[in-house]
Amino acid sequence: MKDEALVEYILGLADDALVSAQRMGWWISRAPELEEDVALANIGLDQLGQARSLLTYAGEVEGEGRSEDDLAYLRDDREFRNVKLVERPMTDFGVAMARLLLFSTYQLHLYRALASSSDATLSAIAAKAVKEVAYHVDHATHWVLRLGDGTEESHARMQAALDAEWPYVEELFGPLDPTLAGRVADPAALREAVLSDVRRVVDEATLALPEVPTALGGGREGLHTEHLGYLLAEMQHLHRSHPGVTW
Amino acid sequence: MKDEALVEYILGLADDALVSAQRMGWWISRAPELEEDVALANIGLDQLGQARSLLTYAGEVEGEGRSEDDLAYLRDDREFRNVKLVERPMTDFGVAMARLLLFSTYQLHLYRALASSSDATLSAIAAKAVKEVAYHVDHATHWVLRLGDGTEESHARMQAALDAEWPYVEELFGPLDPTLAGRVADPAALREAVLSDVRRVVDEATLALPEVPTALGGGREGLHTEHLGYLLAEMQHLHRSHPGVTW
Repeated sequence: MKDEALVEYILGLADDALVSAQRMGWWISRAPELEEDVALANIGLDQLGQARSLLTYAGEVEGEGRSEDDLAYLRDDREFRNVKLVERPMTDFGVAMARLLLFSTYQLHLYRALASSSDATLSAIAAKAVKEVAYHVDHATHWVLRLGDGTEESHARMQAALDAEWPYVEELFGPLDPTLAGRVADPAALREAVLSDVRRVVDEATLALPEVPTALGGGREGLHTEHLGYLLAEMQHLHRSHPGVTW
Repeated sequence: MKDEALVEYILGLADDALVSAQRMGWWISRAPELEEDVALANIGLDQLGQARSLLTYAGEVEGEGRSEDDLAYLRDDREFRNVKLVERPMTDFGVAMARLLLFSTYQLHLYRALASSSDATLSAIAAKAVKEVAYHVDHATHWVLRLGDGTEESHARMQAALDAEWPYVEELFGPLDPTLAGRVADPAALREAVLSDVRRVVDEATLALPEVPTALGGGREGLHTEHLGYLLAEMQHLHRSHPGVTW
């Protein structure tokens, strides 16, 4: 029997990583230092690698013969399961670092929990990803501290970036499908640990946790902002117009 | 005494790699397959790595304290020394693969020759780069064969891509400054070997070597197309507006 809840769960993880990788890709050739250019490219590549493994596994569990490419390029935005945090444009460096801190801290706790789950494939993917994501957290932390505890202007910009991203944090901790309890990592159960890690960095950076209303969720159910449509149009264009580049 | 000819020579190599890496970066999130996305990103990162080492060395030889970032972000287009082949937009997949074949075949021969030059730093940079570039040649060859010897449409598009890039090949083999003779690799001396390698792939792909007039060179003297200006504006914007991202 098809395990639909598991497919949806894996797609959620996969699409978070895939969409995040695409946003990270925007920074290639635009970073403030050559070293940072390389760092952001490698972070995006790590996320893309996670997405590929997860999409392949989602296709296997689904059992309808869909490959990683089918799932990446031939679904429309209503079929994507990523949270809204990762899909909005990320063309401000402060926003990029704030988002990376929030998202990678969440990923770190999630993958750590998944690494000891009973699902052998998810466990293996997660164990590899933990090492990558730990570096992403370090990288984001470095910049949030440097900018938050920097000049008056960098502080104000970093705070504004954090304020902009914060409404989208809560969606990360949405409820787990009851049929998956005990089989995979439950995001809701990670909430306190993730927020506590983030709070520590925010405090040390002399920033303040924003008091802003939570944004509407729905990403896991395919309700997205218009930004995802544009992102997918760009990502899927060549594959859709020339399947397999056979022209 | 400042070795101006050597600085110019190194900047030529560095800027070719740097500008090519930026054009490759455009493909991230736009490739036709996830695997290809990863491949193109890694090729761009290899080129960026070569550019960083070469820029650092150019700064050392110049002896005015300029870092890789100073040279990448604080020169204007008239100070860039790359050939025009690499600076034009590369938003067609056939063009991307045609250009990669031409450029990486040239780089392969150049770095091979440089690896045994008497300049220890250039020799070390080149020895590392040879391994990377050999893979780039393989990758481009794979696609040129697949598309050239594919469907009627893919053949026509690949030929059109080759025709579009061909006028810019000759500039790669521009004359060497006489004071550098015997000290570094002479591009003009590599011409036959490079073209012979390219011809072999083009033949096997059932494509034809274009008979098109050579485009105006001048890139090594800082005469560029308007496209380089746009590329640099994007690449340099953040660094120039926020030096060191200290805001």
